[in-house]
Amino acid sequence: MKTLSENRCFGGVQGVYAHASDATGTEMTFGLFRPEHATGAVLWYLSGLTCTHENAMTKAGLQGWAAEAGLTVVFPDTSPRGAGVPDDSNYDMGQGAGFYVDASEGEWAQHFRMESYIASDLPDTVFAAFDLDQKRQGITGHSMGGHGALTLALKHPGRYRSVSAFAPICNPSDSDWGRPQLTAYTGAPADHDASILLRRAGKFGAPLRIDTGTSDQFFDKLGTAALAEALAATGSPSEVNLQDGYDHSYFFVASFAEAHIAFHADHLA
Amino acid sequence: MKTLSENRCFGGVQGVYAHASDATGTEMTFGLFRPEHATGAVLWYLSGLTCTHENAMTKAGLQGWAAEAGLTVVFPDTSPRGAGVPDDSNYDMGQGAGFYVDASEGEWAQHFRMESYIASDLPDTVFAAFDLDQKRQGITGHSMGGHGALTLALKHPGRYRSVSAFAPICNPSDSDWGRPQLTAYTGAPADHDASILLRRAGKFGAPLRIDTGTSDQFFDKLGTAALAEALAATGSPSEVNLQDGYDHSYFFVASFAEAHIAFHADHLA
Repeated sequence: MKTLSENRCFGGVQGVYAHASDATGTEMTFGLFRPEHATGAVLWYLSGLTCTHENAMTKAGLQGWAAEAGLTVVFPDTSPRGAGVPDDSNYDMGQGAGFYVDASEGEWAQHFRMESYIASDLPDTVFAAFDLDQKRQGITGHSMGGHGALTLALKHPGRYRSVSAFAPICNPSDSDWGRPQLTAYTGAPADHDASILLRRAGKFGAPLRIDTGTSDQFFDKLGTAALAEALAATGSPSEVNLQDGYDHSYFFVASFAEAHIAFHADHLA
Repeated sequence: MKTLSENRCFGGVQGVYAHASDATGTEMTFGLFRPEHATGAVLWYLSGLTCTHENAMTKAGLQGWAAEAGLTVVFPDTSPRGAGVPDDSNYDMGQGAGFYVDASEGEWAQHFRMESYIASDLPDTVFAAFDLDQKRQGITGHSMGGHGALTLALKHPGRYRSVSAFAPICNPSDSDWGRPQLTAYTGAPADHDASILLRRAGKFGAPLRIDTGTSDQFFDKLGTAALAEALAATGSPSEVNLQDGYDHSYFFVASFAEAHIAFHADHLA
């Protein structure tokens, strides 16, 4: 692991690091905020389409609350990148749009293994480099990253003690944000759909909080209703907030950053 | 004035607007955060070199605290822009680097009138469009914007009830960040130097708070010592904080956003 930058931030350190990933076969970059008084608890923040490790790190306003709560926050990239990595001319496919799955199909299979990256490679690196408690992990994300948080939690029960999401893609197998991409990557979009995985699991295995704006310009692509229905049908303890007038932007994420950090801090204490 | 965008943010609205400026002879863009429970008090936030209206609006983390305090925050651009506006190949001169002065020299004189823009044109537009209290204005800024906040306050005594700055350029007539630019724009850099203007004024006319990081990579260009000395020599009530380990980035600004908003809110109540 090499250090690309470190900036003092709310008494702690906002770092950017790079490491070689076996899962993706590429060098991957991630951000990590380390509070001054770290409790050892870790929150994974998965970003949305087009983002790198940097967007949320500079715009979501999480660090101040994380500093108060003693939470370490990790900001992974959203896909492998580089000259040898396939891409697509659409913003919602290829580089910047890994959808947090392990691709098995065609040109994508070699590098687009973001599920293994987030679930294995990156934790291996992070837990080796920083003094953190693997038993106290939470996961959150925005949009495609919310889909990532939900599906990773469902695929790895017991791994994350708390799960939240900002405007997550909840039912990707029935959305332009999901069906084409998950089909191209894996051939099986239903196997990476939080609403379907929840029905299969019978219950969501960790405390869950979701916030989505009622004025989200992509509301129709998110499938919030399908997940809300599945949560109720499975009797899964959860909080789904439809926030009046908020849209899909980082202004929305920042507005609820305090609430999400508090939610995770409560469960990771 | 036309609306370019509005996003709900911390219960209020983060807007971006454009208007024709007589001072610059161009269309100017600015951001304005309007809290849900606005007290009428206004804080002007002047950005630094290379910034537009957008950087601080998305990265400084001011809105949450402003929402709590009921403060309206305005984020002006840092220079005139456009095809007919002169520029320079250096990042610290021309577009993105107006230095908040009215240029009198050469090609700059026609459009680079940022002092008049911030002190007259923009307030005229803002006070006409929003229900705000002209008697309760504060001003702050970062780096070149800190220089702007300090010098505008010194040039317009009584205008701003509270003044603060993040890592301000304090003594530009003795800095690479100031002497060449203010000479090219005005021919008289000393007339736009906060440390010199303060000596001439005899006292800083409003409560003042400054924060600068001890690990600021541009510390040598800021001239903090000259202003600190002038504040002491003139017996000006002020707070100059050298913050251990912080640098020049928005991570530093965001770390002290709460404190600066609280400072202004106290004086603008």
